Amino acid sequence: MVHYKAPLRDIRFVLEDLLDVYSRYKKLPGFEETTPDLVNAVFEEAAKFSEEVLTPLNAVGDTEGCQLIDGEVKTPTGFKEAYQEFVAGGWPTMEQPVEFGGQGLPLSIGLVIREMIGTANWAWGMYPGLSHGATVTIFDHGTDQQKDIYLKPLISGEWTGTMCLTEAHCGTDLGLLKTKAEPNDDGSYRISGSKIFISAGEHDLAENIVHIVLARLPNAPEGTKGISLFIVPKFVPGDDGSPGERNGVSCGSLEHKMGIHGNATCVLNFDDATGYMLGEPNKGLRSMFTFMNVARLGTGIQGLAHTELAFQNSLSYAKDRLAMRSLTGPKNTDGPADPIIVHPDVRRMLLTQKAFAEGGRVLIYFAGTLVDTVDKSTDPAKREEAENLLGFLTPIIKAFLTETGSESANLGMQCFGGHGYINEWGMEQNARDARIATLYEGTTGIQSLDLLGRKVLGSRGKLLKPVTAQIIAFCKEHRWNRDMRPFVIPLWKSVKRWKSLTRRIGFSALRNKDQVGAASVDYLMYSGYVLLGFIWAKSAYVAQQKLSSETSTDKDFYQAKIQTAEFYFAKILPRTATLEATIKSGSKSLMAMSEDNFTHH
Amino acid sequence: MVHYKAPLRDIRFVLEDLLDVYSRYKKLPGFEETTPDLVNAVFEEAAKFSEEVLTPLNAVGDTEGCQLIDGEVKTPTGFKEAYQEFVAGGWPTMEQPVEFGGQGLPLSIGLVIREMIGTANWAWGMYPGLSHGATVTIFDHGTDQQKDIYLKPLISGEWTGTMCLTEAHCGTDLGLLKTKAEPNDDGSYRISGSKIFISAGEHDLAENIVHIVLARLPNAPEGTKGISLFIVPKFVPGDDGSPGERNGVSCGSLEHKMGIHGNATCVLNFDDATGYMLGEPNKGLRSMFTFMNVARLGTGIQGLAHTELAFQNSLSYAKDRLAMRSLTGPKNTDGPADPIIVHPDVRRMLLTQKAFAEGGRVLIYFAGTLVDTVDKSTDPAKREEAENLLGFLTPIIKAFLTETGSESANLGMQCFGGHGYINEWGMEQNARDARIATLYEGTTGIQSLDLLGRKVLGSRGKLLKPVTAQIIAFCKEHRWNRDMRPFVIPLWKSVKRWKSLTRRIGFSALRNKDQVGAASVDYLMYSGYVLLGFIWAKSAYVAQQKLSSETSTDKDFYQAKIQTAEFYFAKILPRTATLEATIKSGSKSLMAMSEDNFTHH
Repeated sequence: MVHYKAPLRDIRFVLEDLLDVYSRYKKLPGFEETTPDLVNAVFEEAAKFSEEVLTPLNAVGDTEGCQLIDGEVKTPTGFKEAYQEFVAGGWPTMEQPVEFGGQGLPLSIGLVIREMIGTANWAWGMYPGLSHGATVTIFDHGTDQQKDIYLKPLISGEWTGTMCLTEAHCGTDLGLLKTKAEPNDDGSYRISGSKIFISAGEHDLAENIVHIVLARLPNAPEGTKGISLFIVPKFVPGDDGSPGERNGVSCGSLEHKMGIHGNATCVLNFDDATGYMLGEPNKGLRSMFTFMNVARLGTGIQGLAHTELAFQNSLSYAKDRLAMRSLTGPKNTDGPADPIIVHPDVRRMLLTQKAFAEGGRVLIYFAGTLVDTVDKSTDPAKREEAENLLGFLTPIIKAFLTETGSESANLGMQCFGGHGYINEWGMEQNARDARIATLYEGTTGIQSLDLLGRKVLGSRGKLLKPVTAQIIAFCKEHRWNRDMRPFVIPLWKSVKRWKSLTRRIGFSALRNKDQVGAASVDYLMYSGYVLLGFIWAKSAYVAQQKLSSETSTDKDFYQAKIQTAEFYFAKILPRTATLEATIKSGSKSLMAMSEDNFTHH
Repeated sequence: MVHYKAPLRDIRFVLEDLLDVYSRYKKLPGFEETTPDLVNAVFEEAAKFSEEVLTPLNAVGDTEGCQLIDGEVKTPTGFKEAYQEFVAGGWPTMEQPVEFGGQGLPLSIGLVIREMIGTANWAWGMYPGLSHGATVTIFDHGTDQQKDIYLKPLISGEWTGTMCLTEAHCGTDLGLLKTKAEPNDDGSYRISGSKIFISAGEHDLAENIVHIVLARLPNAPEGTKGISLFIVPKFVPGDDGSPGERNGVSCGSLEHKMGIHGNATCVLNFDDATGYMLGEPNKGLRSMFTFMNVARLGTGIQGLAHTELAFQNSLSYAKDRLAMRSLTGPKNTDGPADPIIVHPDVRRMLLTQKAFAEGGRVLIYFAGTLVDTVDKSTDPAKREEAENLLGFLTPIIKAFLTETGSESANLGMQCFGGHGYINEWGMEQNARDARIATLYEGTTGIQSLDLLGRKVLGSRGKLLKPVTAQIIAFCKEHRWNRDMRPFVIPLWKSVKRWKSLTRRIGFSALRNKDQVGAASVDYLMYSGYVLLGFIWAKSAYVAQQKLSSETSTDKDFYQAKIQTAEFYFAKILPRTATLEATIKSGSKSLMAMSEDNFTHH
């Protein structure tokens, strides 16, 4: 069974030493009193809940899965009790607005809690996690009355929420969706259609479920311009807000899937269900973008979560398991063999996970501070700057961290040898659970087109420029620092190439748009490796400063930061060399073959 | 559910156009009458059996799995009937020696049949597949009496076999094994101990199971020099060879594992079981190498199998599924969206699978011809040459093709978007089934140490040289051929670097043996990419010849070969750039961190 210990030390390093979040909070109205003492006390409790309540339920969720019995979904043993404890502890309210019962903490703090919960038990964490999308969408687009009715119970956790987008024939291409919404005389709508892949679409954890449904009005324009949003509650709230009549939405079946068995993935049938329009007619897809950005950040956390879980468990296995002798002579001379952590290739696998976990953590927490700024800054220029940067980083965080999350989960398994393939160790579950993350909330391919097509080329490089400028400024600042040169020189090169590759793709796309699709995934991964390079260079710099200060404690911790940075630059950043070559090779070799000639029967 | 069509056209291309096997057979005693007509008729029947009988059982095996009921293992519905049909059809006998009831076909032909069976249903194919190891080991090391008793029923398929190596505390490091063998007065032994991960260790397909067990004699030397081999039949054969008394070997439990659910992975308890020594005392491990090489080739086939299955299924999905429009304008103008095969990134995923499937096929079939030569050639120099080359290629085939097999299976899933994660499409099963292949029969790490440490450096480059020489000769021959230059020039460079990297590692290993472990996996992957580059360059050359001949038919097929080669050189071979850099970066960044400092809690 997997074990998990929340990496509170590393979390503090990122928030305090690297991102200096508490100074930032002082400048944001409403966050001024978010102090390290307060936050660290919250983290201690979140760690305890994650480690003691959720981690033991991780394997239970996988083994039992969810069951559909007479239209009701039974979640795995212990899930409901854990959820009750979660609600009683006020956890769903942390980063929610005070006016609806929230505790008003910064999202950047909420993300840390979500990381702990998600690492301990991703499938469980999806139930409260999905509520977030519904909450944000109602908060941003709902009427006052809708906010009154829905936000308080969603934020308290008494109710949960879902997002109902996908249909059997369309997921990525939502313009094709068919679910209908027909107006009733009282201003409500009758919703009919079938949605698939609805996570937490039905369950026994909460007394009501609020579905946000994408549907078409009669005579709506075709395609994405004819989509509207509707609130469809499982139980229609009465005037007092308490759940009333059962609505015409039901769970038709549960998907059998590779992993995240503890979360119910539902086919939801809407049969003249009562719905209430959210936002303006035919502008539903635009309203979804608010939600999608948050959901994509959340999926990035999933990549981090599986990386962290793989790392912690494969690390302890590598210290325990004895096999063979070190190539440089026995290390565990009293034992029959050496622990496998002596072997360079096992270390390579461990350090890869460690570098992705710690580096990915920085990327996500940094994005959290951007959301804080977008939400709270009084300076419109800063808000716009943060929004642009967030828009740029979101597809990278989503796709890069889930791709490396899957890689890390598989490396974690690999460290266990054949035992990695066996359920009881939990590593194969972790790899199965991780695998969804590059698929849902927009595949890696879709994120890559969003990054390269919409964000980078669509802004004519405007969104990329501040990022490369900041990294280059960092490189310039430290180029004469002997300790920093091994990081700064290769980082600088990789950023220059990033810029020239972008120009190159931009030019070639003028003649042939397929050049964008051909380069997109490689470009996104290239971007991710450079960003992580920057993060590791900066981490090394901060650690060097800490080590050279006379009052330095935790020398081992900072030493390990520098060594992990060295590993990253030696073994991971060189992946950009291949990506550069494949990006340069263009689209020709992809597009030449006729569809029929793919078959080799 | 997955579909499968045996790629007979491509199989013929490899055997006839590329490897010219029928000319080779003419020179090998016993194989002279192996003609294309005969072989192609056998292939047609094998294809039919694989497609019609085994493919439909693939999902059944996954869903039902195996059950242990009162010590007996029940295989999934239909497995037993399929096995009976398999035995009745004479399939287990194909490449087996005539004197024990086999049909004496070349192993290179047997491997093709195994590929079809394994692609259709890997878990099922493991039952007869495991017999092969037991058969070969008895054939090579058994007494005449042992051969008389065991080989005929193993070869006919009436009995199956297993290899019992792993124990709970040791898999890679067999020197640590504890299973005991104590002599009886009648020359037999009492075997006691517990073995884990025994594939096909117990089942209901055959009337007897022959276990080949690694165990220690009393007072045997410690470590690998104290291991002997024993035949332990489930039912002890009487004098007439028919299965008699039930032996003291029983299945203690079945492992719950990520995939290959249709195959029973057993804990086998030996409780004073009667065993018969096979080969010489304390030389068991050496005798195992015969088996291991064949098993590793077989696992290489698994990589190919999952690649092929992923490719065929994701290709048809990509042609059917409609989503979004091509970036260069609508292609399916009458439909609501374009089939996703128009998108460059989908093509990238499909072509990656195609290039690995077709290239991997060549690598395996070529290794098959080497086994033929080792077994049958009358020329000792040729036998030695083939044996050396086979020893060099085996770890690459095992590790490279299973790593790319996992990658391909995951790309196949990715083409399906969210549907890839759902059981019913079969793609997530394929990814789960594929995942074991980099773990069992020696992990990728172990294969890499075998390649770099034992084979390349251990022979002081002797085993590498003929390979690089052959590729360079090919490059020189075609360097002025305009059509071949785009392949020959980058291939040549990559071979030169392969040689210089080898020297570099060799020198640095003189000072520090950890340099070998640090470089090994990257080196193995580098080797695999270069070999596949050679294969694709050669495939392109042969296809160009065919296309320029006046009688050319199948122009589309050959055109696709050239285009796939172009894809390989544009998008896959550049992976060597990263591997070169990471190899050069050495072991320092891997070994610097103290074990304690890995933790970041």
